[in-house]
Amino acid sequence: MAEYKAPLKDIRFIMNEVFEAEKLWASLAGTKDSVDMETADAILEEAGKITASLIAPLSREGDEEGCHFEDGKVTVPAGYRDAFKTFSEGGWAGLTGNPEYDGMGMPKMLGAQYEEMLYSADISFGLYVCLTSGAALAIDAHASEELKTKYLPKMYSGEWNGAMDLTEPHSGTDLGMIRAKAIPNGDGSFNVTGTKIFITGGDNDLSDNIIHLVLAKLPDAPSGSRGISLFLVPRNKVDENDVVGENNKVTVGSIEHKMGIKASGTCVMNFDGAQGWLVGEENKGLQAMFTMMNYERLSVGIQGFAAAERSYQNAVAYAQDRIQGRSPTGVAAPEKAADPIIVHPDVRRMLMTMKAYTEGSRAFSTYVARFLDISKFSDDPEQKQHAEAMVALMTPIAKAYMTDRALDTCIAGQQVFGGHGYIREWGQEQLVRDTRITQIYEGTNGVQAMDLMGRKVVANGGKLFELFASEVATFIEAESDNQAIVHLLKPLAASVERLSDTTEYVIKAAQSDPSAIGAAAVEYLDLFGLVAYAYMWARMAKVAAPQADADEFYDVKVKTANFFFARILPKSVSLVESIKAGADEMMSLTAEQF
Amino acid sequence: MAEYKAPLKDIRFIMNEVFEAEKLWASLAGTKDSVDMETADAILEEAGKITASLIAPLSREGDEEGCHFEDGKVTVPAGYRDAFKTFSEGGWAGLTGNPEYDGMGMPKMLGAQYEEMLYSADISFGLYVCLTSGAALAIDAHASEELKTKYLPKMYSGEWNGAMDLTEPHSGTDLGMIRAKAIPNGDGSFNVTGTKIFITGGDNDLSDNIIHLVLAKLPDAPSGSRGISLFLVPRNKVDENDVVGENNKVTVGSIEHKMGIKASGTCVMNFDGAQGWLVGEENKGLQAMFTMMNYERLSVGIQGFAAAERSYQNAVAYAQDRIQGRSPTGVAAPEKAADPIIVHPDVRRMLMTMKAYTEGSRAFSTYVARFLDISKFSDDPEQKQHAEAMVALMTPIAKAYMTDRALDTCIAGQQVFGGHGYIREWGQEQLVRDTRITQIYEGTNGVQAMDLMGRKVVANGGKLFELFASEVATFIEAESDNQAIVHLLKPLAASVERLSDTTEYVIKAAQSDPSAIGAAAVEYLDLFGLVAYAYMWARMAKVAAPQADADEFYDVKVKTANFFFARILPKSVSLVESIKAGADEMMSLTAEQF
Repeated sequence: MAEYKAPLKDIRFIMNEVFEAEKLWASLAGTKDSVDMETADAILEEAGKITASLIAPLSREGDEEGCHFEDGKVTVPAGYRDAFKTFSEGGWAGLTGNPEYDGMGMPKMLGAQYEEMLYSADISFGLYVCLTSGAALAIDAHASEELKTKYLPKMYSGEWNGAMDLTEPHSGTDLGMIRAKAIPNGDGSFNVTGTKIFITGGDNDLSDNIIHLVLAKLPDAPSGSRGISLFLVPRNKVDENDVVGENNKVTVGSIEHKMGIKASGTCVMNFDGAQGWLVGEENKGLQAMFTMMNYERLSVGIQGFAAAERSYQNAVAYAQDRIQGRSPTGVAAPEKAADPIIVHPDVRRMLMTMKAYTEGSRAFSTYVARFLDISKFSDDPEQKQHAEAMVALMTPIAKAYMTDRALDTCIAGQQVFGGHGYIREWGQEQLVRDTRITQIYEGTNGVQAMDLMGRKVVANGGKLFELFASEVATFIEAESDNQAIVHLLKPLAASVERLSDTTEYVIKAAQSDPSAIGAAAVEYLDLFGLVAYAYMWARMAKVAAPQADADEFYDVKVKTANFFFARILPKSVSLVESIKAGADEMMSLTAEQF
Repeated sequence: MAEYKAPLKDIRFIMNEVFEAEKLWASLAGTKDSVDMETADAILEEAGKITASLIAPLSREGDEEGCHFEDGKVTVPAGYRDAFKTFSEGGWAGLTGNPEYDGMGMPKMLGAQYEEMLYSADISFGLYVCLTSGAALAIDAHASEELKTKYLPKMYSGEWNGAMDLTEPHSGTDLGMIRAKAIPNGDGSFNVTGTKIFITGGDNDLSDNIIHLVLAKLPDAPSGSRGISLFLVPRNKVDENDVVGENNKVTVGSIEHKMGIKASGTCVMNFDGAQGWLVGEENKGLQAMFTMMNYERLSVGIQGFAAAERSYQNAVAYAQDRIQGRSPTGVAAPEKAADPIIVHPDVRRMLMTMKAYTEGSRAFSTYVARFLDISKFSDDPEQKQHAEAMVALMTPIAKAYMTDRALDTCIAGQQVFGGHGYIREWGQEQLVRDTRITQIYEGTNGVQAMDLMGRKVVANGGKLFELFASEVATFIEAESDNQAIVHLLKPLAASVERLSDTTEYVIKAAQSDPSAIGAAAVEYLDLFGLVAYAYMWARMAKVAAPQADADEFYDVKVKTANFFFARILPKSVSLVESIKAGADEMMSLTAEQF
């Protein structure tokens, strides 16, 4: 595998130039005094170094070795322990954590860039860190002062890890059916009992304790999803001096044998009357989870394109080096027996497509992170509310569209290698296997599409959608005299128009056909993603165009935008046609006729 | 994993009803006296039994165990040896082999159905059989009478296996660069020396000998692809009494660790002055390979959709059984805590798409096999020539479109399972890994697309394409009063028109832009595949419609055709737009700017 190089120039282009981080952070009440650009920039630099030099070299061997489960304990692959220690000492798990409990308080727009690099280096390793950050986020938002004081500093420092325990064997997407029980002990704590499956990092030997956030039902809870509460359950008891003691009746049943992310232990967890504490209100566990879900879903999207970035870097290096055949425009490397395969148009097609999607994803994830920051750090209620609405609308797209395109990209990156892409040696096949999970966990991409189409679009009659449409319209209007990108504005406007029209179509169809939302959902999310990426590329082109003559970095951005508009955006036309074919043909068989 | 059930009813529908095998075979000089429908039907029945009961149960464990390489020898997973023995004794490797050398002489249209079942059961296992059949095909077509008499009967009986040795470390797609040498010994034999990689079944312990077909260069051969000859090189020497003796200086360097098809040994082969015999003419090795390539490429396409069929069967069983959430149209299973997930429109979308592609592929592979049979068995020169032209045109589509859609299908089949699709237990992730190779080997799908767009379409100014277009036009014309399918004819005609128009566009563009062919190739193949499948579905609907009221089997066919036309065929619109965007944006960066 080619060495991973953190794409810092691209990251800075997006964060600083396209989305003007400095201006934003200076304008927000919660960041203007606490975030300075010099620190942010040093963090990017350091993240680039540590991910490339410390973590990226572990990913191949981690995949080969996988996790081990013996005597009830999960051990991670060789090398992970030391790297995790070094990494944790850098305070990375607390990068965006609450400063009141020793977090670093950095904004998500910066955190998103760091996460990209971490996941490019190794998704499996990154999961241990990011699950901990995610659990800490939920604790910070909903737990009592006492729990926060006790657990957050140790989690931010990586001394203790976090895990999220939602799924049960019979209950995945449909969490209303969970059976885990929590019985009050009378002292403010609860006895938690139940079995959870697919628990990422549910156990490991990276740290001294695992802090589980467990969904369970109180004795007289209402049935269904309105009767679920959230509990903090440490694997090992912690005394008043924060000393980690005996096991808290939290044990590992087994670990899964999976297609990929093999260095991430996926555990069956058994809670047998484990002592836990309520996080948030009784029966409002799902709502408490939602706080962190927007962050987690964005993170999973970032996992996808981060792996795709790595696949792209490998594919470019291979395509520049591997010689095979001759260029159709004439011999390119007469001194060699053949030309490097990067001369072939079809290899270009793959590389350009990979590049267009991956950089589009980086822009889009930063765009969504920016709204997360505004909703968290603004003190202007209107601005905050608008940002929250945009986060709600964009999160399912960020999760599903970024990961769907990431799989496409990793498959293309494997294809560039021909037969060499199928053998393990080059690492490209691992990236396909690792990326595949991102389309499945944290709510499958089908579930994301239902969330977008149903809850985020149809349920409010398209109001949230209008926020996006008018933002793009404002951009088009503002740039209408910008000769450098005017050729992109017309197709951008047409694609938004197509999306608006389709939105209306589904809203109307849903009034009479209960299957309309589900039938349209996945293709609608695809269409929305395409249009959103077109908008991203137009914004990138806008910033790059004035500097394109002087600096080829910017010239390449403009050319990649042109490629996206010419070769990829046309997909939107067919998606509309498919959606408008409606639900009937999809639902025409009985369940038994399949 | 659900048990594999050979879809015999579907297979018979395609072979007997849609493509009227009986009528065809009765009309061809080479089959009318030797192939009877009763035998053919018994073969199907038996193939269904043996693949489902003997082979399918091996695939999971074969994947877990993989092949072993020790002391220079490759051993297959436990269970494969016994199964292979039983299977070979049935004469399956010689099913379509030449009866003069103990083959069964069955047509490819039947062979294609048997191959589907074999590959659904286990691609890895099937490869050992089909590589042998493929090598035998090349020997039968080009080798001397002496070689044929000596080797074919043992290969048809499975006593000896076959392998194709083309690729070298520096020479894959670009075979002109191979370095393997063959020096005449003066006795009609040659000393073959060189290293070959990615040799499927290059060594194994299933049979007593491996018969390698090796591409190598004679001492004063012209450079490039016009200087390549084909040699038969047995791993072990065979004396005049056909007794297998000492090693013929053919050794295994190593086996590859791969993403999938782990039970198929992929070998590095070393030939160190191994004794071999010329197959076909000197320097015409590539042409000799072409004979079998159309068969092999169709076989790889069949591998793809066969795996997709298995994934579909598993996904249907899971979707009917797994309960999660409630139907949007109201509770479907009030006696259960939730409805089976097959009620959800998005699950329907996945299953219908899988079904439409897989059955479309079965029809298309049979359609191509039919032309292979006509070109082989007809004694009418015009009919033969037409069939050869159709085979040439359709082969790259059969290989690439069937395998591309097969990966999509296997990914969908994995997605239906949610998290359970990602763990190894259910087998869905293995099907994704196994299928992925079909897009890569036997010429990557990008290479297939170049072959279609360049050699098969542009090079003859669209003449071969016209054969297809006029066949479809004739069908549309003939059915124009058929009320049962008239609603499909208009979109079918429109899609052929779109394809014709795009064909013309590329032919013209290629006159001035040497990159035009490569830039259009993959999307053009996609478009052609879509249109060809639309034609297949229209033909299926035509046969099914009159029986739809009386028998739900046929009703489901008509409904699936409607789904394909409504929800899938619209993709063609966008493909045209992308192709017509041309090569410029794709080629706008320098090689170093990536």
